[in-house]
Amino acid sequence: MINQSIIKALKNIVGPEHLLSEKEDMYTYSYDAAVLTPRMPSAAVMPASTEELGRIVSLCHENCIPITVRGSGTNLSGGTIPETSGIVLLTGLLNKIIEINEQDMYAVVQPGVVTATLAAAVEQKGLFYPPDPGSQLVSTLGGNVAENAGGLRGLKYGVTKDYVMGLHFFDARGNYVKTGSRTVKCATGYNLTGLMTGSEGTLGILDEIILKLIPAPIARQSMVAVYDTIEQASETVAGIIAARIIPATLEILDNFTIRAVEDYSRVGLPIDAAALLLIEVDGHPVVVKEDGEKVEALCRKMGAKEIKVAETEKERDKIWAARRSALSALAKLKPTLVLEDATVPRSKIPDMVLALQQIASEFNIDIGTFGHAGDGNLHPTILTDRRNTEEFKRVEEAIEAIFDKALTLGGTLSGEHGTGLAKAPFLEKEAGFSSVLFSRQLRRALDPQNILNPGKITGLSEEDSI
Amino acid sequence: MINQSIIKALKNIVGPEHLLSEKEDMYTYSYDAAVLTPRMPSAAVMPASTEELGRIVSLCHENCIPITVRGSGTNLSGGTIPETSGIVLLTGLLNKIIEINEQDMYAVVQPGVVTATLAAAVEQKGLFYPPDPGSQLVSTLGGNVAENAGGLRGLKYGVTKDYVMGLHFFDARGNYVKTGSRTVKCATGYNLTGLMTGSEGTLGILDEIILKLIPAPIARQSMVAVYDTIEQASETVAGIIAARIIPATLEILDNFTIRAVEDYSRVGLPIDAAALLLIEVDGHPVVVKEDGEKVEALCRKMGAKEIKVAETEKERDKIWAARRSALSALAKLKPTLVLEDATVPRSKIPDMVLALQQIASEFNIDIGTFGHAGDGNLHPTILTDRRNTEEFKRVEEAIEAIFDKALTLGGTLSGEHGTGLAKAPFLEKEAGFSSVLFSRQLRRALDPQNILNPGKITGLSEEDSI
Repeated sequence: MINQSIIKALKNIVGPEHLLSEKEDMYTYSYDAAVLTPRMPSAAVMPASTEELGRIVSLCHENCIPITVRGSGTNLSGGTIPETSGIVLLTGLLNKIIEINEQDMYAVVQPGVVTATLAAAVEQKGLFYPPDPGSQLVSTLGGNVAENAGGLRGLKYGVTKDYVMGLHFFDARGNYVKTGSRTVKCATGYNLTGLMTGSEGTLGILDEIILKLIPAPIARQSMVAVYDTIEQASETVAGIIAARIIPATLEILDNFTIRAVEDYSRVGLPIDAAALLLIEVDGHPVVVKEDGEKVEALCRKMGAKEIKVAETEKERDKIWAARRSALSALAKLKPTLVLEDATVPRSKIPDMVLALQQIASEFNIDIGTFGHAGDGNLHPTILTDRRNTEEFKRVEEAIEAIFDKALTLGGTLSGEHGTGLAKAPFLEKEAGFSSVLFSRQLRRALDPQNILNPGKITGLSEEDSI
Repeated sequence: MINQSIIKALKNIVGPEHLLSEKEDMYTYSYDAAVLTPRMPSAAVMPASTEELGRIVSLCHENCIPITVRGSGTNLSGGTIPETSGIVLLTGLLNKIIEINEQDMYAVVQPGVVTATLAAAVEQKGLFYPPDPGSQLVSTLGGNVAENAGGLRGLKYGVTKDYVMGLHFFDARGNYVKTGSRTVKCATGYNLTGLMTGSEGTLGILDEIILKLIPAPIARQSMVAVYDTIEQASETVAGIIAARIIPATLEILDNFTIRAVEDYSRVGLPIDAAALLLIEVDGHPVVVKEDGEKVEALCRKMGAKEIKVAETEKERDKIWAARRSALSALAKLKPTLVLEDATVPRSKIPDMVLALQQIASEFNIDIGTFGHAGDGNLHPTILTDRRNTEEFKRVEEAIEAIFDKALTLGGTLSGEHGTGLAKAPFLEKEAGFSSVLFSRQLRRALDPQNILNPGKITGLSEEDSI
C-alpha cells in the first residue's frame, strides 16, 4: 500500500476529483478480461494533460511506486491487472484527436482515444485506420499500441504495429522520449517505435501516438458460406490463400459458436451448420467483383452447401454484428470464459481446427472456436466455471495442450492478445531462454526499479523486486 | 590490434582460407559508401555456418573484440566502417535461401543472400518481395534488415521493417536469440524483431531472417512526365497523393541529374527538362489502367509538357535502369559524392525541393536532386572533392542546413540510409537528449562491453569504452 502522503501528492497533481482510492473503486480496477486472480491497486489516477502525466511518472519514479496503465480494461492476457502496492493510471481524460493530416495521411492522438472514434473520424475524410480489435467500440488506441492489437482485418491490412509511425512517451525515469516521425520512411536512431509497440506498458507510458492512415477502399462485399463439416471450411481458408486472394476479412465460426450467437442475437444463422465462413473482400469495384466471384466459386468447390452474399449495407452490417457478438454470446453460457489466441501459419488452420476438437474431447471440456482464420489466428474459447476446481484444472491442461500444438505447427502462443501475466510463464517455451534473458536485460536497463507494469511479458525474475 | 593468438583462434573456427588479416585486404574493408575516414580492421572472417558464426561471437565476447558485420559494404552512413581493434564479419558465405513457403507466403534466408536474388527466386513462384534499395543487385538481406533499407517502392509497399516477421541472432554475449514467428500475427514477448530491424549490427549478429512475401501484382505501367520547372514536378507529387492514388513508385530527377544520367547511359532523356517524374502504378489491370490515366491527367494539369508511357516491358526497364543509374552517373562527375536522404512529410516535397536549390546557391556547391519523391524521401546529392578542404567545409555546412530544413518541415534526418557514424552526432537534434539516453541505456544493457559495431547510431558516450 502506498502511504497517505503519496495519495496527497497525486491529488495535488490531478485534483481530488481525478484520484480514486476507496476500496469499492479499487475493485473496478483489479481485473481485466483475462481469467486471473484480481489484485486491488492502491489508487487510480486520471491525468488530464501531458504535464500531469509526467508529474505522476516522476512521483512514482522517486517513490518506487508501480504503475499499471489502463485504457478500457479489455485486455485478455492480464496486462492491466495492477500491483497492490501500485497505482492504476487511467487514460480516459487523455482522449483528444490532436490532428488528422489528410495530405500526409496520418493522425496524432492521445492514448485514451477510443479506437472506433478515430476510425469514424478518419472515415469522414475518406481515410481508413484498419486495425479493428474485437473491442474497438471501447478499446483505446493507447491500449492497442501497448498490446499491438490485431483484429478482423489483420490478414490484408496488418495489425497495430503496421500503423504506428511514431510515439512520445515518458520512460521509467520520467524522461520524455520521442521516437519515429511523421514521414513514411524513418531510419533515424533505433526503431524504438517498434520496440514500444506491444511492450504492454513495461517500457514507458505513452503520451502521444502518430498513426498511419491509408485511402479508404472504394467498394466491399461480404458473404457467408455454410458448411456441413468444419474441415471443409478450414480447407477453404487455406484454398483462398493458396489462390493468392487476400480478403479483407476471413472469419470462421464453429457450430458451438453459431448456436451461441444465434441464441444471443437472433440474426438467422443456420444453427445446423458445422461451420460458417464470413468473408469480406474490398478495394476497387472491379477487383471486389472478381475476387468475390472467385471466393464464391472456391467455397462451393470446397463443399459449401450455401453461400449468402450481402446485397445491402444493412445485410453486411448484420453479418459482422453477428461475428462481433460471438464473445458476448459465448460468455453468457457459463460463468467463466477463457479466450485463447494461439496462432499458426495459415496453411495449418485445418490441422489446428482438428487438434482443437481432439483437445476438447480429450480434456472433456467445451471449446467454441471462432476467429481470424485467414491469418491463422483462431480464438478457441473455453467455457467453464472457475469455481469448479477439478474442471478448471482440466481447462488449464487443455490450454497448455493448445499452446503446444500451435508451437508444433510452427505457430505462436499469442497472435494478438499479448503475453501479459497469462502467457508470461510460457514465453520461454516459444522463444527460448536466451530470448527471455535478452528481454529481461533490456527491460531492467530501461526500468531498473521495475515500476512499469511489473510481471507482464517476461514474468518476475529473482532480480526483479519492487 | 588483436593479437596473433586471436587470429589463430579465428582461423581454427573458419579455416585459414576464410580469415584475412593482410594489410592490403584490410583496405578493402576499411570504408563503405559514406564519405568518412576509412579505418582498417585487424582481421576479416567469413563464417560458413551458424555454428562458426556463434563461435566467432563467443570468442569476441570473451576477448572483448569489436565486431562489425559487413554484407556488400553499400552502406551510406558509415555503418560498416570497422574499429581498428576489431574484426569485420563477412556474411558472403551465409548466402542460402533456406525456405520459400508459397502456402504461407514467407521466406527464410541467411543474412548474406543478395536482395535481388531473393526477389528473383520468389518472383518465379508468383510471389513478391517489394523492398528494393538502390543497391539491390549487390546489397544483402542481412544488411537491409540491419539498416531497415528502403527503396523505390516504399510509397506503396513500405520498407524492410514491414517485411521482417522474425529473426534469429547471436547477442553480444554469444547467446542465440529467437524472436518473431512464421505467422502473420505474433504478439508473444517483446517486438524484438522490430527493435533489431534498423539496429545496424549494434544489438546482435543476424543468423536467420524470416521475411513476409505477398502476391505479385498482375499488371504495371510506367511513365515519364517532363517538366519545365521543378516546382511543377514536385507539386504534381503532392497532387497525386492528395488524389489518394498510391503509385508503386514515384521518383523525381532534377535537371542536374537528368544530364548526368543521359551523359552516362544515353537512354534519350530530355536534357533540357527542368525535372522528370518517373512513375509506376501496379495492381489489377483495370486499376492500373484507371490509375495510369488519372496520373497522366494530373501530370498534364500540373504542367507536364510531355508524358511518355512505356508501351513494352523493354521501354519500362529502360526507364528504371535510367533511374537506377543516377547515383553512378553523378558519382562520375566529381571525386567525392555525398548522398543524403533527409526526408519530409510528402506534402512538403515542394518546400524541400525549393530549399535544396537555395542551399546549393547559398553554399555555392553542386547538388543533384533525385529520389523517392512519393514518400518524401529525396536524395540531395552533393558533388565535391574531399581534398578541397575549403569547399568540403561548405559541403558540411550545407548538409547541416539540409538536416535543419528537413526537421523544420516535420521530417527526419534519414529516410532509409540509417544513422551509422555519419548521422550519430545529429541524432539528438532530431530525437532529443532523452531519446538518445534511452537508446544508450538499452544498448549498454544488451552489449555491456560495447563490442557490437561501436559508435554507430548513438555515437560514443563517455561510458562507452572498448
